[in-house]
Amino acid sequence: MADFIGLVEKDLKKLELSIDKLITTKIGFIREIVNYLIKSGGKRVRPILVMLSSKLCGYRGDKHIPYAAIIEFIHTATLLHDDVVDNARTRRGFSTVNTVWGNEPSVLVGDFLYSKSFELMSQEGNREIMKTISQATTALSEGEILEIIKTADISITEKEYFDIIGNKTAILFSAACEIGAILGNVKKEQRNALKNFGYELGIAFQLRDDILDYTSYDEVLGKHVGTDIKEGKVTLPLIHALKSAGEKERLSVARILKKNTVSQKDFERVRKLIEQYDGTAYTSAATEEFLQSAKKQLGIFPSSRYKNGLISLADYMLKREK
Amino acid sequence: MADFIGLVEKDLKKLELSIDKLITTKIGFIREIVNYLIKSGGKRVRPILVMLSSKLCGYRGDKHIPYAAIIEFIHTATLLHDDVVDNARTRRGFSTVNTVWGNEPSVLVGDFLYSKSFELMSQEGNREIMKTISQATTALSEGEILEIIKTADISITEKEYFDIIGNKTAILFSAACEIGAILGNVKKEQRNALKNFGYELGIAFQLRDDILDYTSYDEVLGKHVGTDIKEGKVTLPLIHALKSAGEKERLSVARILKKNTVSQKDFERVRKLIEQYDGTAYTSAATEEFLQSAKKQLGIFPSSRYKNGLISLADYMLKREK
Repeated sequence: MADFIGLVEKDLKKLELSIDKLITTKIGFIREIVNYLIKSGGKRVRPILVMLSSKLCGYRGDKHIPYAAIIEFIHTATLLHDDVVDNARTRRGFSTVNTVWGNEPSVLVGDFLYSKSFELMSQEGNREIMKTISQATTALSEGEILEIIKTADISITEKEYFDIIGNKTAILFSAACEIGAILGNVKKEQRNALKNFGYELGIAFQLRDDILDYTSYDEVLGKHVGTDIKEGKVTLPLIHALKSAGEKERLSVARILKKNTVSQKDFERVRKLIEQYDGTAYTSAATEEFLQSAKKQLGIFPSSRYKNGLISLADYMLKREK
Repeated sequence: MADFIGLVEKDLKKLELSIDKLITTKIGFIREIVNYLIKSGGKRVRPILVMLSSKLCGYRGDKHIPYAAIIEFIHTATLLHDDVVDNARTRRGFSTVNTVWGNEPSVLVGDFLYSKSFELMSQEGNREIMKTISQATTALSEGEILEIIKTADISITEKEYFDIIGNKTAILFSAACEIGAILGNVKKEQRNALKNFGYELGIAFQLRDDILDYTSYDEVLGKHVGTDIKEGKVTLPLIHALKSAGEKERLSVARILKKNTVSQKDFERVRKLIEQYDGTAYTSAATEEFLQSAKKQLGIFPSSRYKNGLISLADYMLKREK
């Protein structure tokens, strides 16, 4: 992440302090869980987008820090709820909150983070930003719901898949960039360009995630992870492979997706099918296409180190291995 | 509910239309669940508070309707999440959403309703109301978290209990009343009086709920329901009884609270203990005290039918059997 991290290094330090400062609650248990989540890291991609976008738009104040924190709170809240919905055991190599403390705190601390975010936003009082973020969170929940409706459904179309990831991932990326544009008070064209940049970047981010789910190898476990297939998620690599697969292969995938426990052998069978029918290559090509288009959006901005920062962040998306 | 229902009858009809109109989503499944929840009724106490308070404060516009809907959406979202947290099977005589569709939609449609509420509020653009509601929802989640921390804990104090119900119930009642004051643009003293009225009314509402959980008799099931004890919730009737109970009785209650499955015999044992040590009478007296105090708050307002409406709503709280 070297090329753009230097530009936001100071802001990222401020962000960590801000996160601590903004989570005011008398309840030690909430702080414990929030600290646990923050310790378990994350790439802070969304806050970085708020930071780079605001600077690109000439914003020189300090409000981008609390908004970056708010975007990260909302993202964290969705992770907490996702882990309950998906019954996930680990995330980023750490046990999930629902594994350590149960479903109850995951749901409720997620709610706390959502509410706190809206409380902080009403204190800040920027109505445009509030609209942008609240529309994004509504879309987010719609995306998650679409996703569960399509669980284990091999007839899911590419359009439906892109609808899901657009809502559940890209719109929050887009909102993060739009916040920068609103803070910088730029013209409508520039605001739309950043909004589209964030959206396409978010799509690319999710496509890369969906590839990595099949290709990344867990050194500790000594195997491919393959979370999506276990959770019945039919993502682009598989959707593409299923187009060329024969009826017997399709039925076998459908059967595996519906299983409560997917064995390593099942996963390897699906992975081989995806390889055979170029599912990963197809998804990589799509990722690259979205990233090219995203970078083109920035053409409306004059050259600057922040513009270069956003471009190298986009390039990093394509290469990242986790 | 006769004495005050007449005053809000037209508004309640508008509310139902507004609920349908405001829940805009392309996803049929969300509408299905929201309709199911609306069909399963509820007393609409919080929306009625918004309506009566705004009219008491001289508000004659029509914004109280969307705000009443928003307060009901937030309340519904908390019910959805509660039912997941408590693993509840039925509510208001209907199967819960998590029973019919599973935990996933309960969590996610709850999130949708939260987000939609904030989206609608940012569209309305009243910052004071937004602050009031977002502070209330943060407190709400804190109350729920405090409650799970104190699950099955017989050493819970009255103060801790009142902290929990203050956050999880009273603050949203209070916010509902405060919205009316903000819309009516009344003086600070009147706004505070309504805020306190709502808070004390909310406490009384929850106390009554906690009594009914031990005393109400389900004609269909032919037995007392006793949900709280099954969920390990130690409420005021039991807290009071435990003060006078002997060590052996206390240990027996502690054992029952920690059980995964509470038998009808277990429940009856706790119920008898509460009767023996006047837990219900004590809680009824506390309910009455809060209601008296709540009604006193309204002294600052001149006589009007809306003031009388709020008073008879308070009186109804004490008598209600469900």
